[in-house]
Amino acid sequence: MAKMLITSDNRKFIVKDETKDLHTNYGMIAANDIKKAKPGKIVKSNTGQEFTVAEPSFIDSYRRIKRGAQIIPLKDIGLIITEIGLNKDSVVIEAGSGSGALGCFLAKICKKVYSYEIRQDFYELVKKNIEYLELKNLILKNKDAKLGFDEKDADVVILDLPDPWELLTQAKKSLKVGGFIVSYSPTIPQVGDFVDKLDSDFVYLKTSEIIEREWEVSKRKIRPKSQAIGHSGFLSFARRVK
Amino acid sequence: MAKMLITSDNRKFIVKDETKDLHTNYGMIAANDIKKAKPGKIVKSNTGQEFTVAEPSFIDSYRRIKRGAQIIPLKDIGLIITEIGLNKDSVVIEAGSGSGALGCFLAKICKKVYSYEIRQDFYELVKKNIEYLELKNLILKNKDAKLGFDEKDADVVILDLPDPWELLTQAKKSLKVGGFIVSYSPTIPQVGDFVDKLDSDFVYLKTSEIIEREWEVSKRKIRPKSQAIGHSGFLSFARRVK
Amino acid sequence: MAKMLITSDNRKFIVKDETKDLHTNYGMIAANDIKKAKPGKIVKSNTGQEFTVAEPSFIDSYRRIKRGAQIIPLKDIGLIITEIGLNKDSVVIEAGSGSGALGCFLAKICKKVYSYEIRQDFYELVKKNIEYLELKNLILKNKDAKLGFDEKDADVVILDLPDPWELLTQAKKSLKVGGFIVSYSPTIPQVGDFVDKLDSDFVYLKTSEIIEREWEVSKRKIRPKSQAIGHSGFLSFARRVK
Amino acid sequence: MAKMLITSDNRKFIVKDETKDLHTNYGMIAANDIKKAKPGKIVKSNTGQEFTVAEPSFIDSYRRIKRGAQIIPLKDIGLIITEIGLNKDSVVIEAGSGSGALGCFLAKICKKVYSYEIRQDFYELVKKNIEYLELKNLILKNKDAKLGFDEKDADVVILDLPDPWELLTQAKKSLKVGGFIVSYSPTIPQVGDFVDKLDSDFVYLKTSEIIEREWEVSKRKIRPKSQAIGHSGFLSFARRVK
Repeated sequence: MAKMLITSDNRKFIVKDETKDLHTNYGMIAANDIKKAKPGKIVKSNTGQEFTVAEPSFIDSYRRIKRGAQIIPLKDIGLIITEIGLNKDSVVIEAGSGSGALGCFLAKICKKVYSYEIRQDFYELVKKNIEYLELKNLILKNKDAKLGFDEKDADVVILDLPDPWELLTQAKKSLKVGGFIVSYSPTIPQVGDFVDKLDSDFVYLKTSEIIEREWEVSKRKIRPKSQAIGHSGFLSFARRVK
Repeated sequence: MAKMLITSDNRKFIVKDETKDLHTNYGMIAANDIKKAKPGKIVKSNTGQEFTVAEPSFIDSYRRIKRGAQIIPLKDIGLIITEIGLNKDSVVIEAGSGSGALGCFLAKICKKVYSYEIRQDFYELVKKNIEYLELKNLILKNKDAKLGFDEKDADVVILDLPDPWELLTQAKKSLKVGGFIVSYSPTIPQVGDFVDKLDSDFVYLKTSEIIEREWEVSKRKIRPKSQAIGHSGFLSFARRVK
Repeated sequence: MAKMLITSDNRKFIVKDETKDLHTNYGMIAANDIKKAKPGKIVKSNTGQEFTVAEPSFIDSYRRIKRGAQIIPLKDIGLIITEIGLNKDSVVIEAGSGSGALGCFLAKICKKVYSYEIRQDFYELVKKNIEYLELKNLILKNKDAKLGFDEKDADVVILDLPDPWELLTQAKKSLKVGGFIVSYSPTIPQVGDFVDKLDSDFVYLKTSEIIEREWEVSKRKIRPKSQAIGHSGFLSFARRVK
Repeated sequence: MAKMLITSDNRKFIVKDETKDLHTNYGMIAANDIKKAKPGKIVKSNTGQEFTVAEPSFIDSYRRIKRGAQIIPLKDIGLIITEIGLNKDSVVIEAGSGSGALGCFLAKICKKVYSYEIRQDFYELVKKNIEYLELKNLILKNKDAKLGFDEKDADVVILDLPDPWELLTQAKKSLKVGGFIVSYSPTIPQVGDFVDKLDSDFVYLKTSEIIEREWEVSKRKIRPKSQAIGHSGFLSFARRVK
């Protein structure tokens, strides 16, 4: 079990190798001190900074994965999971993998995730992220999803592609009846074309955008953070009915 | 495996007992027709309405659970799951259960969910929902969470209570170091008091509100739905560091 | 000067004729009582309800104008006024008038407003609203704006029409160099077409949507109102530069 | 009448003195060229850049006023104007002036604006902005508003102060019956205290926040701008009824 060191202002350092000293911008912590420390105990750096030792969670490692393509934010992953009720029994197909952020997250929740990525550089990146997160049930394929998916009876096909409507036939073939198709697109014309091109094999369910508004909460200074609400993408949902 | 009948405009009927005729507002479907029909096939009611037979997903049953208290919406469950990275290895404690909506959803994703509910009527309601969803790993307790939780080393404690700050000590005792505490409150003064009362055993992480904006997408009629964006609650996150 | 009667819970009644008794759902107030009462004084209805006498403001009358077409909400009128700096010296052309809500509001702020409405029924409705609000500087025309505007050198042309791009040439002819064109459309494809069809005579400035979020503020019950944020329309702004 | 030079990508240069050459980051435009040019005509800089000559609007000058304190954004000024129906007949009192942004804008719309600013440095700044915008009906006073306003029967008192509830008595004395009080505050505890302290002389109307969402509109790239929606402040409205 890896250890994580946390400062009182929430800076986190994951220790991957306990035989080496850990160098941080808060000073150096000796390998020996790290090795002896149990969760809940305090260790000090050579500059006197205190760290609490904790067990890292999946989310701590997840936040450190490598990013090549633009990453889907957690708020949007949340709607995908909840809108279609992804769970321990779910089989997921996604295309394209991008940086693997969505696929890696879903692999920790679902039974199996099959991820298709045509670009070699992204494929290599996702492979590294899978290894880093030690995922066994995320099957990555360096293939063009437009040529079709190898799997059948999936619970959901998730498309994060510039032209998701080009994969409707392939998605249908690999979905069980009652299975979902989700498309994630940054622009409205993509949303419009995707929904327009759904044929009667699918029932269109909804299109939503998730806005996360962060608040500053500090004594009487309670207000929405002024720095921003950005835009990531729109999520469209449909369901195979034939 | 239960069957689900879907109309082309997305009305869904779950068949719980295949030995009985199904009566719907689209007419009656004979038990025998339902029994013979395989997923993907069409059955007709006595009024001629066509239904496609599909396998129901967890989400179809989930959307039918009974509601006594106000239910936490899916958009907010999504942020809880993603912000703390809930997954197949997670152990969750929640108080109070309310209608069990949050606990039931998380039980399909996590290893174990312990849910505390002081009110007898809510407790009975949640029990029914657990049975309906056939959940084995959601342990429901008709106890006052203020007297403490029986479990140790949980990954997260989720509070959906009018005065969440009253449970900080109890939560701390049951969380592993590095574990999360989440509070869900409808009003800003509750958020302020909760964050104010976090002591140095916790690092405060963030407070967010999730706004889901649904769009109408139909040919050139592409616009945000005019009917609404409501308000449910604010989610505050902190982490045990000592 | 008309009088307005206000209850302590903000129900307002404008007295148009002081020689008549006023009948309200809070009882009847005698004409004589109304006549004698000065601003700030209390009058009582025959059921004992108290009303404070006040001078009505323009906004009190404005909120009572007749609505035939869907009315542009105040939040959107606000952005039009501020984004282009409408003021006492501004000359405005608008098409179509709709219910006259925008034109009437702007007439109270600007030097002159010319309003074009092709539909006879809307034209009659706006005429009634102009009379009700006693506006002298709102010139209403029952004409097809596509045939061109009679005016020259306007500061702004505001289009609230299904196909605003069809009026770009007419608008240009009636705008001074440096003048603004504003288009108000409910759907994104309309916004896209309008912006696409702006030629180099115009500089495109921006497209915005205004969301007004109302809050409930009552002791510790401080939270966004749960009933809604709707959608009205998108505002696109451009400027004549040639 | 001043002239404004606009590039085709909407960079604007206001010429204040036609006897001098204008130096821009697009090159120098000779004073003689500027003097001869009429609105709608093209002038060229010594580097070949083309500028269209236009008449500047009030908003062009307004966007150039000096900012010391944080400025109230146009979206919020819009709601103040429309919610209380400010117009050519309105008499406005505001405290404090800040940079004068709100007062200057309202002076172009209203009959008279009285603005109170206790800080000497802000007072000097606003004076410069009033001169720059050549406003005659904005009366600026270097006085503490807590000592009371000199005016009577105002249509509205607008408070942009850390503790607006301290001015309720003063505001009441200077408002006509039926007149409005508006408070602009960045944080929720300020909103709560202001609304709590309104006594029965006032009817509380509403509290709103205005969110402006800008869109990128360029061919098929139509999406909310990803850079941001910030937070400025909450607007609370009440009305004197006694």
